[in-house]
Amino acid sequence: MPFPTDEDRDRPWLMRTYAGHSSAQASNALYRRNLSKGQTGLSVAFDLPTQTGYDPDAELARGEVGKVGVPVSHVGDVRALFDEIPMEQMNTSMTINAPAMYMLALYLTVAEEHGADFAKLSGTTQNDIIKEYLSRGTYVFPPAPSLRLITDMIAYTVRNVPKWNPINVCSYHLQEAGATPVQEVAFALCTAIAVLDSVRDSGQVPDDQFAAVVARISFFVNAGVRFVEEMCKLRAFGQLWDEITLERYGVQDAKARRFRYGVQVNSLGLTEAQPENNVYRILLEMLAVTMSKDARARAVQLPAWNEALGLPRAWDQQWSLRMQQVLAFESDLLEYDDLFEGSTVVEAKVEAIKQGARAEIDTILGMGGAVAAVESGYLKSALVSSLALRRRRMESGEDVVVGVNKYTETEPNPLQGSEDGGILSVDPDVEDAAKRAVVAWREGRNAADVDEAMTGLRDAAKTDANLMEASLACARVGVTVGEWAGVLREVFGEYRPPTGVAGASGGGHEGELTSVQQRVRALGEQLGRPLKFLVGKPGLDGHSNGAEQIAVRARDAGFEVVYSGIRLTPSQIVSAAVEEDVDVVGLSVLSGSHLSVVPDVVRGLRDEGLTDVPVIVGGIIPDRDAERLRADGVARVFTPKDFEITDMLSAIVDAIEEARA
Amino acid sequence: MPFPTDEDRDRPWLMRTYAGHSSAQASNALYRRNLSKGQTGLSVAFDLPTQTGYDPDAELARGEVGKVGVPVSHVGDVRALFDEIPMEQMNTSMTINAPAMYMLALYLTVAEEHGADFAKLSGTTQNDIIKEYLSRGTYVFPPAPSLRLITDMIAYTVRNVPKWNPINVCSYHLQEAGATPVQEVAFALCTAIAVLDSVRDSGQVPDDQFAAVVARISFFVNAGVRFVEEMCKLRAFGQLWDEITLERYGVQDAKARRFRYGVQVNSLGLTEAQPENNVYRILLEMLAVTMSKDARARAVQLPAWNEALGLPRAWDQQWSLRMQQVLAFESDLLEYDDLFEGSTVVEAKVEAIKQGARAEIDTILGMGGAVAAVESGYLKSALVSSLALRRRRMESGEDVVVGVNKYTETEPNPLQGSEDGGILSVDPDVEDAAKRAVVAWREGRNAADVDEAMTGLRDAAKTDANLMEASLACARVGVTVGEWAGVLREVFGEYRPPTGVAGASGGGHEGELTSVQQRVRALGEQLGRPLKFLVGKPGLDGHSNGAEQIAVRARDAGFEVVYSGIRLTPSQIVSAAVEEDVDVVGLSVLSGSHLSVVPDVVRGLRDEGLTDVPVIVGGIIPDRDAERLRADGVARVFTPKDFEITDMLSAIVDAIEEARA
Repeated sequence: MPFPTDEDRDRPWLMRTYAGHSSAQASNALYRRNLSKGQTGLSVAFDLPTQTGYDPDAELARGEVGKVGVPVSHVGDVRALFDEIPMEQMNTSMTINAPAMYMLALYLTVAEEHGADFAKLSGTTQNDIIKEYLSRGTYVFPPAPSLRLITDMIAYTVRNVPKWNPINVCSYHLQEAGATPVQEVAFALCTAIAVLDSVRDSGQVPDDQFAAVVARISFFVNAGVRFVEEMCKLRAFGQLWDEITLERYGVQDAKARRFRYGVQVNSLGLTEAQPENNVYRILLEMLAVTMSKDARARAVQLPAWNEALGLPRAWDQQWSLRMQQVLAFESDLLEYDDLFEGSTVVEAKVEAIKQGARAEIDTILGMGGAVAAVESGYLKSALVSSLALRRRRMESGEDVVVGVNKYTETEPNPLQGSEDGGILSVDPDVEDAAKRAVVAWREGRNAADVDEAMTGLRDAAKTDANLMEASLACARVGVTVGEWAGVLREVFGEYRPPTGVAGASGGGHEGELTSVQQRVRALGEQLGRPLKFLVGKPGLDGHSNGAEQIAVRARDAGFEVVYSGIRLTPSQIVSAAVEEDVDVVGLSVLSGSHLSVVPDVVRGLRDEGLTDVPVIVGGIIPDRDAERLRADGVARVFTPKDFEITDMLSAIVDAIEEARA
Repeated sequence: MPFPTDEDRDRPWLMRTYAGHSSAQASNALYRRNLSKGQTGLSVAFDLPTQTGYDPDAELARGEVGKVGVPVSHVGDVRALFDEIPMEQMNTSMTINAPAMYMLALYLTVAEEHGADFAKLSGTTQNDIIKEYLSRGTYVFPPAPSLRLITDMIAYTVRNVPKWNPINVCSYHLQEAGATPVQEVAFALCTAIAVLDSVRDSGQVPDDQFAAVVARISFFVNAGVRFVEEMCKLRAFGQLWDEITLERYGVQDAKARRFRYGVQVNSLGLTEAQPENNVYRILLEMLAVTMSKDARARAVQLPAWNEALGLPRAWDQQWSLRMQQVLAFESDLLEYDDLFEGSTVVEAKVEAIKQGARAEIDTILGMGGAVAAVESGYLKSALVSSLALRRRRMESGEDVVVGVNKYTETEPNPLQGSEDGGILSVDPDVEDAAKRAVVAWREGRNAADVDEAMTGLRDAAKTDANLMEASLACARVGVTVGEWAGVLREVFGEYRPPTGVAGASGGGHEGELTSVQQRVRALGEQLGRPLKFLVGKPGLDGHSNGAEQIAVRARDAGFEVVYSGIRLTPSQIVSAAVEEDVDVVGLSVLSGSHLSVVPDVVRGLRDEGLTDVPVIVGGIIPDRDAERLRADGVARVFTPKDFEITDMLSAIVDAIEEARA
């Protein structure tokens, strides 16, 4: 058998690393280093202030600047971020949602400065607000104006930046929030339908150009370690998309109906325990989205093995890139046509997922579509319930997680033995530097131009005009992300979606909680009222899945639970604790800002005289930080190692008893 | 969709780690530690003296004791090796070939002491001598008596240890030696045919029990990073085995025709450069042998990421075991029936491999079968030629090896930053301790019993008697491996198979070698005769693939090449250099014994006055050892990083010029 030549091979997917931290300059250096190692696209990680439309000097930005991504406030930051990177040739993905329009405006402004032809620019703005309401939490505006911003961007890019993906419908975060494969497919397709219906109904795109709109809808999926099912899920996804775009939107061109997707494999499924095993999970997950040619990802970005511990270093990112390169260039995968065409087992599994998803899509459309199903809490409750089931399977050992609930014995891991503990630490001066820089930036602008552009934006927002032009005008004169979002906050208002906790089923078995229930009841009887538990998510971090699971299980154990959702300031949490007269405060922080936000809550409670209300904290918290928190008065610190929620509740009852004693 | 329960899952394969080093006691501790972490079987790695039938105090054992495996010389060592391990429940694989019969005798003797029921003992003795001649190099006796030993073991175990696999026909090492998938399948099946024909013709097993013999033939395969093709290869293997056992041996029971195989994935394909990427290769390779239920391995053992660097530590082995556990227990792979049943692409590929293999099998059987094809040099030359082609594809960049011929830029690797450099060092006292121990062991035996048992073995060897009983008698009274093999060496003689170099095609392109050829010719003209290059393999290490490739390419470059095969003492190499009046001596050492054997050759040449004959060395040689070798007078040291053979030849010409200057 002759060996195949390069021409026989399928083109590899786009290889990216989700990256960015500290500052535009530092991130630019990292991007260029990654590109020199064979990465073929960029994926920009923004910090939480940027993602939620705040500048680094905003009150809510405290402790979050430059942490989980790069702070980008204005056109100057984008210039620095893409310095010496050929934007016309680069394929750039940006994980940005509520302020997506403004980030695109900033990107286009800099691309124009580079002399780039807009017709050649390729890339993606994530821009899926539905999944932000359901899982990721970086929403800002209510559903209707959010959908308008998306619609305006689509109409603008289809005309002016035709190779851009203006939206990446994300099933990714739905899976993290608990979605089964069927839910993941159905909820994402309903989001796409909501967006396409909105574009169609806006009248901004002539009917005969609507296929071009459909062709630009891309998806961003997740792949967990159950890689065979995940691979089947992707085949089902593509087949259903083909059906919907043909039947609902009458798209005749098969190419325009293609299911185009990128992927980040399952970061939240990575373990803190024996973290070196995460490389295996990541590779199996990558196979789920690359193994079958008919349902292969267009772009893949992989987490690093140590993402459950902290920020990956340059070597960690290189190691993840090498995984893609070994599969694409060393293995023979790309030499074959679809490996599963004709497979009885795979076809049956795909069919089962499609049937389930079709039924779920019908249910949601029957409620009025994705937006209505967000507003009613239906989607969120469904996710919280699914996640509760998934967690219970893990806690019972039915779902094995190596190193966590089985095979926990381990030798010391040399990957974590180094001085840096195996992660990158962000320079603590980053936040101050960013604050000073944005203040200086504002001082250096032409104030009259800025006022004029912001007024133009405000006026346009009040009409039905496409907001891209007004946003571009803002970008050019140096308006910041915080200012742009601030204007729209004034006009559109803000929004807080249902948490899903009330409607969710905890999925527990009879008797499972008995011992904790008895302790909660006994202590409540002693106090003459039910125990009250405030679950809080301080800071900008929107990863609320863990907090919601605690809330649901605590409710099932007999606590009265107060949970108002994400993004509360420490003082809002303290006020709620006082007002609701709670017995314990639980804080969940996954963004790494625990050392900034947690002590504020502890101090606030103490200042209010609530000395018998213990504070417990859960999150991705390194050992030495946990010690500092305990020294600061935190009663218990839980990390991903503590996966038994019922045990955690028991420890919380202990903490209440200790505090009262 | 309900989640599948444990009962729906296929049983996982047996999980092993190929392990052993230093001493029986140290290896026993390692085995028990591995078993406590969830390993479900054992795979014993023996050191090279044991594998070639020498005790630790033999001259040829120097520098090799306890290096690549555990030294096991007698029943006392086996007692220590299996201390507190329940032999009746354990499934033990032993990589032992020429002395396989004696190792089985020792194992059975200790199992008897444990009170184990022989009918329950399960495990495998590798015992495939054909592939030792072709690739691995731990042969001792000529083909006919070797085949007799195998035949006797099969006849014995089928009767007395019915769950034992007396032979593991190995295509594994054929792939390392260069075999294409077609060659791998065909050569291994021809080996199995040679063995089955021999058992049938021996008359030791009644015809009506021959199906039981066929049912006990197991295979040991390799899987490289081209994992789709490898998976198809395994399907083809199984289908052809079914054909052969039905058609050639008339086995009617389909269960007895099943293709049963274990696997160690491709250790020699692992890279020294950016060795952290080896985990990806290993995982893809594991998938090749597990992904399809119809062709799934019964037992898997995985190398560690750092095998190209040295001996893995306990953590490295744990990390490889965790890879199997994540796939078997976290992923959903074992929930499905065969994923490729019905696949058009896979079926076509399998058919192509089967057709190629059938043709090759016919060719070999036409020559008189596997033994004749070893003796004529046909098989070895075919492998050397295939490996030459494979190497050239890699050197030209047609076959990508990430970190080696592409994507070579790298950040410093924290896995190698630790004090131990990321590998285990064997205590240098191990060899002396083993020598002292075996001397003491001999002194402690009953000399008369030993003499009697050895005489019994010698006498039996001269007849047609099954040698298992005589070997068991030797085992019981404390005869050593070296003594057992020594008796049979006397009776059977020793053997040196063709090296394959003379008959092999180098597979080069026109003009590729031109510049080196010109230099070799010019220097030869200056000396008035062709340059003469002695390629030597000192010590017991039988991994001769690299040496053979150097020999073939050097010949093509115009050198006159002297290569007499493996396992020469330093003094034999020095004598050959004197006798042949060579211009350069090249030594290849992969077992880690370079610091013992290389300086002896350098000194020997100097003592003979050959001061202008440079010595060059290739092998798995850590940097600091390379420095010591250079300080000892070695002219050039090549490691796996130096993969361009033509460049190496050029450097060798430099070394000759320097030495003469």
